[in-house]
Amino acid sequence: MRKIWDARQLEHAPALELHNGAFVPHAEHPGRAESILAAIGETEPAHDHGEAPILRVHRQDYVDFLKRAHADWKAAGRTGDAAGYTWPVVRRRPLDLERIDARLGQYSYDAGTPIAEGTWTGAYWSAQTALTALDIVLAGERSAFAFCRPPGHHAGADYLGGYCYLNNAAIAAQAAIDGGAGRIAILDIDYHHGNGTQDIFYDREDVLFVSIHADPKTDYPFYWGHADEAGEGPGEGANLNIPLARGTARPKFQAALDTAMDRIRQFSPDLLVLSFGADTFSGDPISHFRLETEDYPALARSIASAAWPTLVVMEGGYAVDDLGVNVAAFLGGF
Amino acid sequence: MRKIWDARQLEHAPALELHNGAFVPHAEHPGRAESILAAIGETEPAHDHGEAPILRVHRQDYVDFLKRAHADWKAAGRTGDAAGYTWPVVRRRPLDLERIDARLGQYSYDAGTPIAEGTWTGAYWSAQTALTALDIVLAGERSAFAFCRPPGHHAGADYLGGYCYLNNAAIAAQAAIDGGAGRIAILDIDYHHGNGTQDIFYDREDVLFVSIHADPKTDYPFYWGHADEAGEGPGEGANLNIPLARGTARPKFQAALDTAMDRIRQFSPDLLVLSFGADTFSGDPISHFRLETEDYPALARSIASAAWPTLVVMEGGYAVDDLGVNVAAFLGGF
Repeated sequence: MRKIWDARQLEHAPALELHNGAFVPHAEHPGRAESILAAIGETEPAHDHGEAPILRVHRQDYVDFLKRAHADWKAAGRTGDAAGYTWPVVRRRPLDLERIDARLGQYSYDAGTPIAEGTWTGAYWSAQTALTALDIVLAGERSAFAFCRPPGHHAGADYLGGYCYLNNAAIAAQAAIDGGAGRIAILDIDYHHGNGTQDIFYDREDVLFVSIHADPKTDYPFYWGHADEAGEGPGEGANLNIPLARGTARPKFQAALDTAMDRIRQFSPDLLVLSFGADTFSGDPISHFRLETEDYPALARSIASAAWPTLVVMEGGYAVDDLGVNVAAFLGGF
Repeated sequence: MRKIWDARQLEHAPALELHNGAFVPHAEHPGRAESILAAIGETEPAHDHGEAPILRVHRQDYVDFLKRAHADWKAAGRTGDAAGYTWPVVRRRPLDLERIDARLGQYSYDAGTPIAEGTWTGAYWSAQTALTALDIVLAGERSAFAFCRPPGHHAGADYLGGYCYLNNAAIAAQAAIDGGAGRIAILDIDYHHGNGTQDIFYDREDVLFVSIHADPKTDYPFYWGHADEAGEGPGEGANLNIPLARGTARPKFQAALDTAMDRIRQFSPDLLVLSFGADTFSGDPISHFRLETEDYPALARSIASAAWPTLVVMEGGYAVDDLGVNVAAFLGGF
């Protein structure tokens, strides 16, 4: 499987995040990339597809905000990375706000996703990595791996959150449709629900979103990912959430995956976008499933058996010492 | 003017708040109360009206959350005061969430309003103070002062924020209606928009909400308080926001107050609830208007000239050295 990676993704390197009431070192750090790169072998660089495919998913004002936010933060006399402190939880609507703190809240939903000096560059090339890997699949290869970092599945059309700024999987899915694909399925097997991806395609019938993740009653992102979220309008029925309890190991995960695959088979997609997080691993420091390294090839084979052209997009995974091995194990099973 | 104050309000004393990207000492501290008490003379204690009038405005699940949140935080092994780190900015809906961090975000909209051990007690007696002062006005006195702390006007039916937990002004307004008043006007002249009060009565035609405040493009709460927010459904037209630029001094503030009073006269209320913040003062450390101590009696006389029975409810004001003098100056002009 060909693998795409762009070193400019390393420019995104926030120092701290607010988590459970205190500032702690940012979990989504460049060391994750080093662990994966050491394990997966040769990679190819990303090609620049420009901003147009990004703007098919994200609002122009949000992209403008992302580019400027850290400079605006510094101009306001602040040090460190930029993050909001108040959020529009009711009657949220587009507003032309001036203060950087106001804009940070308008375009985010958490306090744990700081904007550092290199965030736009890293996020931009993460999206380009997804688009470049998509090109390989659209050109006829069975699959390709987009090693995206920062990850994307928590980012919505006009908001960041959960370490995500641009939704790489959604950008690739939309680009595939714009390139002529009729029906796309997105399968998200990160530990955390892909709320941004769900939100972007919630009213769409041409994109099926299926997610297996930790129950949001106990795990981030809490407010989305519940089993009753099924899509709306034309997208009613094209959204399937399968929340699982903490402690889930291979048998229950495999059963959920079988349910997910059945639903995707019914949908009969032209292309599968797989949002893959390795934070389902038993040793992950911020997650609570119990998958082991040897489970990943088996899960990958389950997915590969359906023979859809497949773009694998990297999402989370924070057990740095084992991360590369787990990612390589998964890709090897594909 | 009779003044109500209950010492149990001092039990609310968070240590720190997240503001502009860093933890800083909490601005709404008990020292504010000491400054005001030293200046306004004798006060009377609050009578306990129970939870029923609180539950006429706030959801039962929110009240249950407020009571338990700090204990749940400690039970999760956390130290310090409880605060959220992620918020439901899209598709917010009632959810039965388990983790304290999830519940903190579900029931708040900012990271600057921590829940300390004594927060429920302080907020409860702050609401009782408003209800006790209301009794005095309903019994026939021209006006009364509810020295509420913590303040209330940013709190919604099921969320805290902006140093506010229970909406004292809204609880008193609803209690007046439940006691037989037909039409209530709430005039909010705190520096910050009273977004919680607005939200609680946004679809109500029997409660007119009028607010004079700093333009939310530059000042908290950012997402609410814009001039085009006019109410909805039966409440369409019963909400008037008058945002003013930073640097506003007496002449422009008085002109805005004249506009507000004209609107209230048209409405012809049975009772006026006045949400009074002294953070419009030139020396306020977190605000940017330029009212001086000698302006407060004149503004109070403008309001008092209309002769509606009036309940004055204390909201913000953070220039502790001058706070008591400014509050006393305002009440003296009434």
